Amino acid sequence: MSLKADFTQDFVRDQWYAAAWSTELGDRPLARHILGERVVFFRQPDGVIGALEDRCPHRMAPLSMGECADGGIRCGYHGMVFDASGSCIGIPGQDIIPPTARTRAYPAVEKYGLVWIWTGSADADKTKFPVIPGYGEEGWALLDGGYQLHEGNYRIEVENLMDPAHTTFLHKETIGNKNQKDIPVQVAQTDRGLSAYRWIENVPPSPLDRKSRDFGEGKVDRRVAFNFELPATSFVDVAVVPAGTERTEERLMNAGIRTFSYKFLTPETHRTTHFFWLHLRNYMQNDEGFEAGLRASLEKTFSEDRDMVAAIQLEQEATGLRQRTSLAIDRAPLMALRMIDRMVAAQSAALEEAVS
Amino acid sequence: MSLKADFTQDFVRDQWYAAAWSTELGDRPLARHILGERVVFFRQPDGVIGALEDRCPHRMAPLSMGECADGGIRCGYHGMVFDASGSCIGIPGQDIIPPTARTRAYPAVEKYGLVWIWTGSADADKTKFPVIPGYGEEGWALLDGGYQLHEGNYRIEVENLMDPAHTTFLHKETIGNKNQKDIPVQVAQTDRGLSAYRWIENVPPSPLDRKSRDFGEGKVDRRVAFNFELPATSFVDVAVVPAGTERTEERLMNAGIRTFSYKFLTPETHRTTHFFWLHLRNYMQNDEGFEAGLRASLEKTFSEDRDMVAAIQLEQEATGLRQRTSLAIDRAPLMALRMIDRMVAAQSAALEEAVS
Amino acid sequence: MSLKADFTQDFVRDQWYAAAWSTELGDRPLARHILGERVVFFRQPDGVIGALEDRCPHRMAPLSMGECADGGIRCGYHGMVFDASGSCIGIPGQDIIPPTARTRAYPAVEKYGLVWIWTGSADADKTKFPVIPGYGEEGWALLDGGYQLHEGNYRIEVENLMDPAHTTFLHKETIGNKNQKDIPVQVAQTDRGLSAYRWIENVPPSPLDRKSRDFGEGKVDRRVAFNFELPATSFVDVAVVPAGTERTEERLMNAGIRTFSYKFLTPETHRTTHFFWLHLRNYMQNDEGFEAGLRASLEKTFSEDRDMVAAIQLEQEATGLRQRTSLAIDRAPLMALRMIDRMVAAQSAALEEAVS
Repeated sequence: MSLKADFTQDFVRDQWYAAAWSTELGDRPLARHILGERVVFFRQPDGVIGALEDRCPHRMAPLSMGECADGGIRCGYHGMVFDASGSCIGIPGQDIIPPTARTRAYPAVEKYGLVWIWTGSADADKTKFPVIPGYGEEGWALLDGGYQLHEGNYRIEVENLMDPAHTTFLHKETIGNKNQKDIPVQVAQTDRGLSAYRWIENVPPSPLDRKSRDFGEGKVDRRVAFNFELPATSFVDVAVVPAGTERTEERLMNAGIRTFSYKFLTPETHRTTHFFWLHLRNYMQNDEGFEAGLRASLEKTFSEDRDMVAAIQLEQEATGLRQRTSLAIDRAPLMALRMIDRMVAAQSAALEEAVS
Repeated sequence: MSLKADFTQDFVRDQWYAAAWSTELGDRPLARHILGERVVFFRQPDGVIGALEDRCPHRMAPLSMGECADGGIRCGYHGMVFDASGSCIGIPGQDIIPPTARTRAYPAVEKYGLVWIWTGSADADKTKFPVIPGYGEEGWALLDGGYQLHEGNYRIEVENLMDPAHTTFLHKETIGNKNQKDIPVQVAQTDRGLSAYRWIENVPPSPLDRKSRDFGEGKVDRRVAFNFELPATSFVDVAVVPAGTERTEERLMNAGIRTFSYKFLTPETHRTTHFFWLHLRNYMQNDEGFEAGLRASLEKTFSEDRDMVAAIQLEQEATGLRQRTSLAIDRAPLMALRMIDRMVAAQSAALEEAVS
Repeated sequence: MSLKADFTQDFVRDQWYAAAWSTELGDRPLARHILGERVVFFRQPDGVIGALEDRCPHRMAPLSMGECADGGIRCGYHGMVFDASGSCIGIPGQDIIPPTARTRAYPAVEKYGLVWIWTGSADADKTKFPVIPGYGEEGWALLDGGYQLHEGNYRIEVENLMDPAHTTFLHKETIGNKNQKDIPVQVAQTDRGLSAYRWIENVPPSPLDRKSRDFGEGKVDRRVAFNFELPATSFVDVAVVPAGTERTEERLMNAGIRTFSYKFLTPETHRTTHFFWLHLRNYMQNDEGFEAGLRASLEKTFSEDRDMVAAIQLEQEATGLRQRTSLAIDRAPLMALRMIDRMVAAQSAALEEAVS
């Protein structure tokens, strides 16, 4: 029952992908590959974000070697200026701007402190952004700006992130726990995707739980959920509430402690992935020492994933295989991959219809 | 009107290419790729320069790993000795030299402090060397020994060097001048190639002009010419003379200040280019401080070109395109490329005729 | 008479290849490519050596990123455990082990301080190990643990090692001797392979000979033999005995000084080779200063070979040729290569017969 590794499958289009932290866009252009395409990001004087194919149409010089100047981005070779629409708005020493003097522009907007890019052929749809509970609300502390480049196809990442079972082994130095209860994972559809979760009921709060919130002498129920949403958003949602608390979303947000650990996966190429992360919590909001430790721990944990993903990418490339045997723990990862497969198949069918 | 990038076009043959500075050929052999071929250069005891295919015909060991010894170059593996004609003149422990014991030899001569190699099938033609005005003459100061490896096809270099317009932007930190007069470039055929030039007339001398030569209270005429000669020689020729001076070559050499900035481009491979440069001037001949500053400025300027050429090479490879839009400034570069194209087409036709 | 370079020829199978020094197998797994295949080596708690395909059949994670634990090797991703037979003996959180949960196992044994691997389809044959005279016997000193990675196909190594003629030139800084007598090399079949040797008779002992053994005022006979055995073992066998000593193996072992310098070549890939070496001598057994100097000299000599082999690999790849001319010194190297060719041809024929 070998499964083949396919690193040529098209990406999911007509979606927003995280491309950069807003803070990365200062006075200078930023070059980044997105879904295999070379893009330059810059900020116009009016604050509008430009996302253009990173090539001047004159001699193919990367626009990212140029400057933010003259109301747009100015090529560093001969000074042609382009605005966020991709139109050339100035050619030194020449009054007439030929109609071929333009470069591809992508819709780009800022949200959640990130610059997002729309790579599809359909109109950009602002309802398609992820919805992050607690973001920007009182009582919630935000850790953001996290970024790693992972040297693996984003599908290997998705399998990793929908798979709680690897924690004990891959993350034994960080978040792994040898004594974790052997409670099976449930998988459920959500509004926007998939959730693999388990409730660990009526257990004493952990030392960190106690430090974060006063649970008195009582026990707690703990829910850990690994969630996936298209195109490639993953978040771990942890809730710890007094044992027996009613399991409404309202109660889980307020009755105990809650964390959301988001990862936005953006394919750089078919074999590399931008890994942006942010983390929200409703406890210990002003403890800088705790926060510094949390950031370091998350960075180290994600680095362990990064190293494994890179190794798997190489082996899957070498063998052309993704799996030779299946385990019970594969259910949620496989369901997430099937969501991607269905979306890509639909998009291929639509494309075929459009051209036939 | 997209133009394709072609990095497989044959090189111009039956020409002299600069291969090394004479000073590079000391006691040891020098390995260098020339027009995609691996060549070893060495000096025989009689002073003759050898330029051989850098492979021993026995086991393909690079001869450049051997030594200048026994009257030629001695292979470092089993000691076979070859002279500049490519003939084996000694095999340790063996008296008979088999007729297959030889390696390809290229004509090579020294001129202008450089070692030149002839890569064609026709006999080497000593009339085909570039003619450098002022070289070795009294009153002229020479800066030479300049070398950079540029990671781009030499055609991208030729476009760059025949294109004064990029100076304002790419060289803004060095020789660029934001306020340069907007005088259009003229293009003319020369005896051996092409010249793109402009006269800036009746202007006050620059501070450097004044420092270099006493122009009194008068104004000057300034001529900047960007020249190209086959196979891949470029030189910038600057003349500054008292306004109204007659424009004969004799007057331009003597009536004011003059510089020749030569670049000899030798393809290393289809995507890399040896960039040899020398610089001649008829002023401030003995000012060591000025000369050191001039060398540093030229090195930095050429490094700016090098970085842009390397970036363009990668983008042209990625897209297969050279241009998507044309500008007025493309005229001289395109004419230079057409000179190359015509020469390569003629050489292909001759080759076809020869074998048919 | 150009000979083609063939870097795609299959390796000789059904043989033992040196894979690692025993000391390399401690508490952690060891990853190594052997004959182009990715293998992980580890030691079970019972001391048995495991040599498995270095990929977990679940998601292709390299087992070498895991640990020696739970009686075998435990995958670092989800904790599956495999024993030396390649069987999965444990899956965390799952009782049933699917029949597909296994990975390829190679026979592996320890001998001469090395771990040897059997890569063939036939049963592992313990009579096929090299037989090293003097190994482990009284009066013999052993230098071992030597390893280098050489960036060339092992056939280029075999040519190098069966070819005494290169010593004068390639090893002029180490063991080369400009004044070596011009006595031709004899080639003879041995029980297990081939020997290229020469006797230098009735000469005064060298300073090292005198230091190693008391030859009195007499002269010596010196025999240097370069030997090859399949699949890729080479050893230099030097004997120095009082002139006129009878040439029986017993006398050569005892009447003077003797060294065996073994190299075990194991293809890593078609273009790289593991180079394991050990050295035996029957003199100056307890002289640590001499031994340190000997080790340094051998390392340096083999590094000279390594650099030449790597250069030749690149040139043979570039040209597709192995030789353009033949010399008298090629006889023994060619005979060794033919032994390999015959073995590979026989193995192909057997394979074809098996499937037809």
